Amino acid sequence: MSSGHRPYWDEPRETMAPAERALRIFARLKAQLDYVYHRTPFYKALYDRHGVHPDDIRNLEDFTAKIPVVTKSMLREAQERQPPFGDYLGIERDQVMRVQGTSGTTGAPTLFAIGREDWAHIAEAQAMQSWAAGLRPHDIVQIAFPLGLFVGGWGHLAAAERIGASVLPLGTGGSERQIEIMRRVGSSVLCATPSYALHLLDVATEMGVDAAAGPLRLGFFGGEPGAGIASVKRRIEDGWGLKAIDFGNVAELHPCSNMECEERTGMHVYQDVDYTEIVRLDQANEAVPMGERGAVVYTHLWRKSQPMMRYFPGDETRMIDEPCPCGRTYPRLPDGIIGRLDDLLIVRGAKFYPSTVEAALRDTPGIGTEFRIVLERVGALDEARIEAEHAPTLGGDGDGDGDGDGDGGERLAGLARTAEARLRAAVGIRLPVSLVAPGKLEVMEFKARRVIDRRPALGGEGAEP
Amino acid sequence: MSSGHRPYWDEPRETMAPAERALRIFARLKAQLDYVYHRTPFYKALYDRHGVHPDDIRNLEDFTAKIPVVTKSMLREAQERQPPFGDYLGIERDQVMRVQGTSGTTGAPTLFAIGREDWAHIAEAQAMQSWAAGLRPHDIVQIAFPLGLFVGGWGHLAAAERIGASVLPLGTGGSERQIEIMRRVGSSVLCATPSYALHLLDVATEMGVDAAAGPLRLGFFGGEPGAGIASVKRRIEDGWGLKAIDFGNVAELHPCSNMECEERTGMHVYQDVDYTEIVRLDQANEAVPMGERGAVVYTHLWRKSQPMMRYFPGDETRMIDEPCPCGRTYPRLPDGIIGRLDDLLIVRGAKFYPSTVEAALRDTPGIGTEFRIVLERVGALDEARIEAEHAPTLGGDGDGDGDGDGDGGERLAGLARTAEARLRAAVGIRLPVSLVAPGKLEVMEFKARRVIDRRPALGGEGAEP
Repeated sequence: MSSGHRPYWDEPRETMAPAERALRIFARLKAQLDYVYHRTPFYKALYDRHGVHPDDIRNLEDFTAKIPVVTKSMLREAQERQPPFGDYLGIERDQVMRVQGTSGTTGAPTLFAIGREDWAHIAEAQAMQSWAAGLRPHDIVQIAFPLGLFVGGWGHLAAAERIGASVLPLGTGGSERQIEIMRRVGSSVLCATPSYALHLLDVATEMGVDAAAGPLRLGFFGGEPGAGIASVKRRIEDGWGLKAIDFGNVAELHPCSNMECEERTGMHVYQDVDYTEIVRLDQANEAVPMGERGAVVYTHLWRKSQPMMRYFPGDETRMIDEPCPCGRTYPRLPDGIIGRLDDLLIVRGAKFYPSTVEAALRDTPGIGTEFRIVLERVGALDEARIEAEHAPTLGGDGDGDGDGDGDGGERLAGLARTAEARLRAAVGIRLPVSLVAPGKLEVMEFKARRVIDRRPALGGEGAEP
Repeated sequence: MSSGHRPYWDEPRETMAPAERALRIFARLKAQLDYVYHRTPFYKALYDRHGVHPDDIRNLEDFTAKIPVVTKSMLREAQERQPPFGDYLGIERDQVMRVQGTSGTTGAPTLFAIGREDWAHIAEAQAMQSWAAGLRPHDIVQIAFPLGLFVGGWGHLAAAERIGASVLPLGTGGSERQIEIMRRVGSSVLCATPSYALHLLDVATEMGVDAAAGPLRLGFFGGEPGAGIASVKRRIEDGWGLKAIDFGNVAELHPCSNMECEERTGMHVYQDVDYTEIVRLDQANEAVPMGERGAVVYTHLWRKSQPMMRYFPGDETRMIDEPCPCGRTYPRLPDGIIGRLDDLLIVRGAKFYPSTVEAALRDTPGIGTEFRIVLERVGALDEARIEAEHAPTLGGDGDGDGDGDGDGGERLAGLARTAEARLRAAVGIRLPVSLVAPGKLEVMEFKARRVIDRRPALGGEGAEP
């Protein structure tokens, strides 16, 4: 059992000089390239088609320039071609310890088959990350992620077990019970999506519970961009009286692919777990300079089961290598994951992510927890408008429509104008805001889906982009 | 990793002569008595109050005659007295690995705090039991129990991991998806409540899936009496084309307290995991002769965290020690758990468990999956009637009320009479049966609650006994 006082899980590893780490990373990359080329038809065919061979890769620059990326649709096709785990499994079927999958609500999930040795690596990596975030053996970790096909919650379970903390596995749902049991058991750590953490906060308030005075001291929030957004993080931290840690979940890679440390200066990129590059959005074989925005590309350095080499999830971010006060020499993503390229909205020439809208709304005092971005076609143009709950403390005229029939109505109309001004500053165009009463919009207990696409060409009423 | 071909997980242990096992059991009992008396205020106070001391116990007979039982309400009181885990925790708080709880929908759950070493014991015990039931390393185990506060599903996860099988953790819900993923992944084992297994069968039929031709070969069913009822077991086995294993779940003891072997001649009682006695229903310090019905009492032989000494869950059963064809020398519960004493119904002088009603209905061809036992007060008397779905294949007159307005109506009226006759044979009195269309009654995805108590004194409409 590890002592609760040492700052690092594995000090030599975490504080290694970057140049020395790069040498080790490259040695692992070479070994992985050989492994995938000789063990999986998927990579053999991919590299042959691109006319590249593992022996061609002499340095990290070659790796970026010559190795093609892998995308989600390539994995889906591979699983259709060779069910169930695709022709990139890499290990024998009976060596699979866990079968997990994407949480996608539409279509067949992509399946993740994880071997025993790899599961141990996952636990070790996430224990190191969670330790850096402040998780300790005396903690009681309430897991409010679903423990099902989605792999994210399992990473927290494995990390907490490895560190020697106690685990209280509750899954999602039963919000009042979550709060009762949290108080009764004295949970010190909460793992959830930012959306669910905000919803639980509303429920606590309704129950008359002073959440900030409760037992939580630390929270791991991920599965969606939320905890990387300053205004969301502030709302969660102030409401619950805890330190909020943002972690990234790219299920093809790991339950947790990157995570903030206690300093919360952006997620650390654990380059010796998954080698991570930032490339041009339109050209994945070209790196962008350190500090500039681009698309992130991940490579498993240890995985034997379904190894990912240059996996391209379509996430936009930027990376910096300035020293972190924590002393770790890993680079960081100072803005977290800015957005998923698939989610990028284009309205009247303005390009923005749903997370930018969320950031602006969370930064508007008086706006409640749930909101929706409604996309519509007006003539030949795409338009977007916002529906948002106002906070319960704002009286309103009872119908919460902000139409101004009463004193509350005046306040709501003012609130809508304030929100519109903040949105215009954030996204560059006017997005009309209509306010609804708290509780009117469906609660997001897991990954939030707040874009309602009513444009006819894309599937009509209620379809998601 | 264990070979898939050997019949025992731990042959010397499982085939030990009962007399030798009894000596070992008694040595462990003595050690546990000392442990609980000196380490927990709860047991110290209980034994002092009853004027018994561990040194007074010289043999297994003394243990039965002199040691008082522990009941659920005593645990609840202890947790109220000393939150959160009661004054019987036995280990330090920071040695707790897992916090689980009762799944009770009413009132605060009883919390189970399980230490690391104990969790390893649980995994080892359930691996031994599951191996006896036929689970092997090449299996893919689809867990359709919720993986949350309820501990039952976690036992299957731990056992499968210890055996080296692959785990597909799905939880409950998303029934169509359960079936799609089962077929896609090729799950060979299903873990669920019998109710949910029957519901999934209905869903498969609706989807046009030939369940019996699917990949399942083995199923672990528990959390409610179902899989111990011959007609339920037959329906599940025939429908899914698998071997159905009944296991008992007394969460205060273990995720799985006893389990059938592949021979399915009743659940084996693993006496060297939990020492198990059958006592008089009205006098827990008096054993009943082998083979006679009574109340079951369990004692942890290894547990350090929240150890249970003579825990009395209120379950009626009987135990036999005739040799099992499997070669294991553990006794068995040939009728499974007959019923929970709290659930016993008394109607017009007849005493019966809901499971007896279920047995009769499942044995009536044409009766569908869901049913309810409705208790009502008629004058001063308690009355019971049955509402049951008929099978989809029975045409009916569209409204499914069996009122005979049409040819289907005639068939339904005949079916109701047949069901009433079988019920009368099983419980001794007439219980009127009304039939409803398939899908009319709420689906039971987890532990079934099929008794609807409408008697005024006990809480009125919809309350559960």
